Amino acid sequence: MVSSPRTVDEHRAVVAALLDPMPAEEVPVAQARGRVLATDVVAAVALPSFDNSAMDGYAVRAADVAGAPVELPVEADIPAGRTDVPALRPGAAHRIMTGAALPAGADAVVPVERTDGGTERVRISGAAGPGEHVRRAGEDVRVGDVVLRAGAVLGAPQIGVASAVGCATLSVRCRPHVLVLSTGSELVAPGTPLRPGQIYESNGPMLAAAVEDAGGTAELLRFVPDDVEQFLGRLRERTADGAVDLLVTSGGVSAGAYEVVKDALTGRGVEFVKVAMQPGGPQGAGRVAELGGIGVVTLPGNPVSSHVSFEVFVRPALRAALGHPQPDRPAVTATLGERWSSPPGRRQFRRGVLDAVSGTVRELGGPASHLLGALARADCFVVVPEDVTELPEGTRVETWLLDG
Amino acid sequence: MVSSPRTVDEHRAVVAALLDPMPAEEVPVAQARGRVLATDVVAAVALPSFDNSAMDGYAVRAADVAGAPVELPVEADIPAGRTDVPALRPGAAHRIMTGAALPAGADAVVPVERTDGGTERVRISGAAGPGEHVRRAGEDVRVGDVVLRAGAVLGAPQIGVASAVGCATLSVRCRPHVLVLSTGSELVAPGTPLRPGQIYESNGPMLAAAVEDAGGTAELLRFVPDDVEQFLGRLRERTADGAVDLLVTSGGVSAGAYEVVKDALTGRGVEFVKVAMQPGGPQGAGRVAELGGIGVVTLPGNPVSSHVSFEVFVRPALRAALGHPQPDRPAVTATLGERWSSPPGRRQFRRGVLDAVSGTVRELGGPASHLLGALARADCFVVVPEDVTELPEGTRVETWLLDG
Repeated sequence: MVSSPRTVDEHRAVVAALLDPMPAEEVPVAQARGRVLATDVVAAVALPSFDNSAMDGYAVRAADVAGAPVELPVEADIPAGRTDVPALRPGAAHRIMTGAALPAGADAVVPVERTDGGTERVRISGAAGPGEHVRRAGEDVRVGDVVLRAGAVLGAPQIGVASAVGCATLSVRCRPHVLVLSTGSELVAPGTPLRPGQIYESNGPMLAAAVEDAGGTAELLRFVPDDVEQFLGRLRERTADGAVDLLVTSGGVSAGAYEVVKDALTGRGVEFVKVAMQPGGPQGAGRVAELGGIGVVTLPGNPVSSHVSFEVFVRPALRAALGHPQPDRPAVTATLGERWSSPPGRRQFRRGVLDAVSGTVRELGGPASHLLGALARADCFVVVPEDVTELPEGTRVETWLLDG
Repeated sequence: MVSSPRTVDEHRAVVAALLDPMPAEEVPVAQARGRVLATDVVAAVALPSFDNSAMDGYAVRAADVAGAPVELPVEADIPAGRTDVPALRPGAAHRIMTGAALPAGADAVVPVERTDGGTERVRISGAAGPGEHVRRAGEDVRVGDVVLRAGAVLGAPQIGVASAVGCATLSVRCRPHVLVLSTGSELVAPGTPLRPGQIYESNGPMLAAAVEDAGGTAELLRFVPDDVEQFLGRLRERTADGAVDLLVTSGGVSAGAYEVVKDALTGRGVEFVKVAMQPGGPQGAGRVAELGGIGVVTLPGNPVSSHVSFEVFVRPALRAALGHPQPDRPAVTATLGERWSSPPGRRQFRRGVLDAVSGTVRELGGPASHLLGALARADCFVVVPEDVTELPEGTRVETWLLDG
């Protein structure tokens, strides 16, 4: 059957629709690193929550030290954390540490370096203007401020500010659980000697790692039988608990005669199509009722096709379900450092290395879909649009940064 | 005591010397994601390891189809994974699937789309030149090629290629185990109401997350007693098992009167110094013999100082110990979108937001060290050299990308 191929964008939409937004769960702040925030974090306390000293020194009334040098009696000692801070009498000083609450009546701090450091009386050699070395309550964050937006990825500073406004837990998106399986009777486990015609299974571990990189959790089913009934039985068994959000397969979908994925899932909700792209033409996607209605994405078996298809279709779908405001890889416009040709009617995703200083990109290993060694050294994809067939050196090209 | 401050680079070298290169450990490939490779991976098999078909179609001698249309007898069927591939007789064709081994005697593949798809005899409507649609053994990787270099961070494609060349396990660097503790009697656990003068503890969870981001494992000791003997006792107890590679503290190191970290570790191997930077002046580092000789880095207690100091001193030390070829954050030169002043004699690290399209950077929240809310929204540090005091709008500035 000949039909016009599906566009990359059409298939992206089909795959994206297979995953609903992930529900939220509450996790302790200390376990939230790398997770995606499900709701805004609103400050319940201000930062700072009270006027405090920016220096180790002496809390004073600015007016009392305007005529420095002066000498003042030291009437209290305020370490950080002291909660019963006595008010400051005009004409006196309190010794104060960084972060300690400014006493009522004080409006400036004289750093210890401008004094003799006295504990009974202090000789102050330099003035401090009103507000000097004082951090005002709410100067950083006011009560009710949104300190983190839903969709934020929680790194160290975000965990810091959430802790600082008093969050013990955070509401984050559940991680989508993805079942990864690769098929093919030519696949052999690493560690076993190869016979001619056999290859080591690499798509499974590669795609599982890609799922985890995208923020999901991966479960690898290896060496699923090539027999359709056994294949379906294994999947039914594994998806019965409802814990799987998406099934990603690789292999078994081309025009060949022995294609277990295609044979098992055709007519069961998965539509097998040709997508106008290279590599990665043969794709499939759909929801399978007899597997609890989970989404299934069938990727081609060539390792590079499989990886590229994951990047183009599955990764953005997982990230969108996680609530990332920007599900796609960051893209830049780079300058092609060589001349390329590209087939008409297909969007090409070519593996490259970007020189960040010159902004020039070059291909690694050529466009063929079996060049896994080159893929492992690439740091970007270069996207060649469907209608572009000749790219002279110097062409400005869309470049996806794979480290971003 | 007044002495000239230590430079940032001097203190970086002191901290870096506290961590030896981490030893290697062997982990299963499927668990190696995000780890740093300890040794080169050398291919024990070629990729592809045998000549194979790039298409579903018919293996032929190119000479036999040069006069297409032609019709040839189909004498064998070669699915992927077939290991007993019969040789091709001149004047015949074998049906072959993508990835299957090319039979001896064949030198080209005719894609099924150029045929009638016959199983007994096949009608071939278009020729295939010698080598067409054939992937040659070793075309991607040859036996003995280095497919991954020591220092590579293992992402999905790297795990793919390692699996493809038959690695069941990989030699990766052990993750440095870092004990994180924050001190200060003003610190309160989230969930408890604040009294005036108290703040929620945020440095501990923030630094623990930063350790994990840098590739280490973090263990958080919270609310360590402010009493010197109890403080030391707690540390002795926790480091007795030899499992801690580095101790990172925050707080307790400024010129204040109640500084447990300084009081406990002075004279015990940690040197407390002033570093010519802002924020983050008061720093300490050294090896403590009575804690098993582990390295100790004492960071200042202000949250922003603490985070900046970690980024400048601890993160590169951890990454260097892990064998990262580039331990530092990626840096770019950006254009300052506003006018700044900076104090002389100190290297400033200011928090900014970089507009990647225009290459312009602007400050978030000002240079003060308590602006944690702003830090959590920043995506870069802007580095102002020690001898620069005035930065007109348009100044080209060194910018560290915190997401990189």
